[in-house]
Amino acid sequence: MAGAAKSGHQLQLLDFWVSPFGQRCRIALDEKGLPYEYLEQDLANKSELLLRSNPVHKKIPVLLHAGRPVCESLIILHYLDEAFPSSAPLLPAGDAYARAQARFWADYVDKKVYECGTRLWKLKGEPQAQAVAEMLDILRTLDGALGDGREFFGGAAFGLADVALAPFTSWFHAYERFGGFSVEEECPRLAAWAKRCAQRPSVAKNVTPPEKVYDFICGLKKRFGIE
Amino acid sequence: MAGAAKSGHQLQLLDFWVSPFGQRCRIALDEKGLPYEYLEQDLANKSELLLRSNPVHKKIPVLLHAGRPVCESLIILHYLDEAFPSSAPLLPAGDAYARAQARFWADYVDKKVYECGTRLWKLKGEPQAQAVAEMLDILRTLDGALGDGREFFGGAAFGLADVALAPFTSWFHAYERFGGFSVEEECPRLAAWAKRCAQRPSVAKNVTPPEKVYDFICGLKKRFGIE
Repeated sequence: MAGAAKSGHQLQLLDFWVSPFGQRCRIALDEKGLPYEYLEQDLANKSELLLRSNPVHKKIPVLLHAGRPVCESLIILHYLDEAFPSSAPLLPAGDAYARAQARFWADYVDKKVYECGTRLWKLKGEPQAQAVAEMLDILRTLDGALGDGREFFGGAAFGLADVALAPFTSWFHAYERFGGFSVEEECPRLAAWAKRCAQRPSVAKNVTPPEKVYDFICGLKKRFGIE
Repeated sequence: MAGAAKSGHQLQLLDFWVSPFGQRCRIALDEKGLPYEYLEQDLANKSELLLRSNPVHKKIPVLLHAGRPVCESLIILHYLDEAFPSSAPLLPAGDAYARAQARFWADYVDKKVYECGTRLWKLKGEPQAQAVAEMLDILRTLDGALGDGREFFGGAAFGLADVALAPFTSWFHAYERFGGFSVEEECPRLAAWAKRCAQRPSVAKNVTPPEKVYDFICGLKKRFGIE
């Protein structure tokens, strides 16, 4: 128990505004129509509540449900889907194979996009060129997974893999500028998917505008002394 | 579809004998009493079936169920639990919070143990000392998660987190020899848990004996020219 909600909210989210991992949780909470208290965290000076709620990783996002912490964004999405099953399922009930496919793509995004994206803006020269090539591979793989005529990763319904990737769509702009490519040109199906996601209120409300992500990364580069 | 099972087996596992990730799947299949065809893979010369079944990662393990591939070991465990729910549940039905906790520890093992273990036997000098210190941190964190008097990670029942970690118990011996520490001395609760796991037929049958893992790693070191 990491302390009960004092605000009367059963659900609280410890998060950081630009985090794509935190935004996944915000999108899922809104898709399910669950009210929650948003608790912005200072990552340079971590709160006692964050350290107590996630002593292992000491990272956001953390969901507190009646004071009990759930950590790691994909695990939070699973938790929300299982604790609040009646609205907007993130995984299709009763279809084990479709669930495995959704988990596969959510896991793929988790393992690949952020890590490669960080190398893409942090490095220079050959290692940066390598990161750009890898990012194009990753985006083309996702473009291929969408295939032709599929609205979302799981088909007609917006689900787990979509929630996992949607926050990164606002990082695409920065990857494009630092990497010198166009997602629209390279991966038209992925670009069209991103537009469909942006039309959902849950995504429009919770995903940082691309220019702000770009400015945030420029701030990080300055802080790390990277030109 | 990656080709239907020709052997009459509905379930086939593409695997490599010493893989702790593959062994997770074998333990889960045996816990659930599911017969399957084991298909040992040559990782130096990947089969057409493996490349076709897992074109994204090109890795074992892959579970084929009536020819349809499921990839990534934790996703395979979830799939088996959902497709074959009637026997030996890996996750407690109806307890979303306990399920999230089990997923958290399985994910922790996934992110930490193998990667740190590889640095521990591959590197030398200060980077190796760093890997040893990290491994001790990881093992102590797992020891703390077990706490006092808990039989398995989820309590009385052998479940997802136990299946995720059990194959690594036979790698502990190699980590101890290359790292110069004793799991028994440093993490007595984890050592006792490993012994309880080893008494289960599913673990005893599928987990490589520690000396064979050690020999396997010595072979890798030789091949990579590491003394």
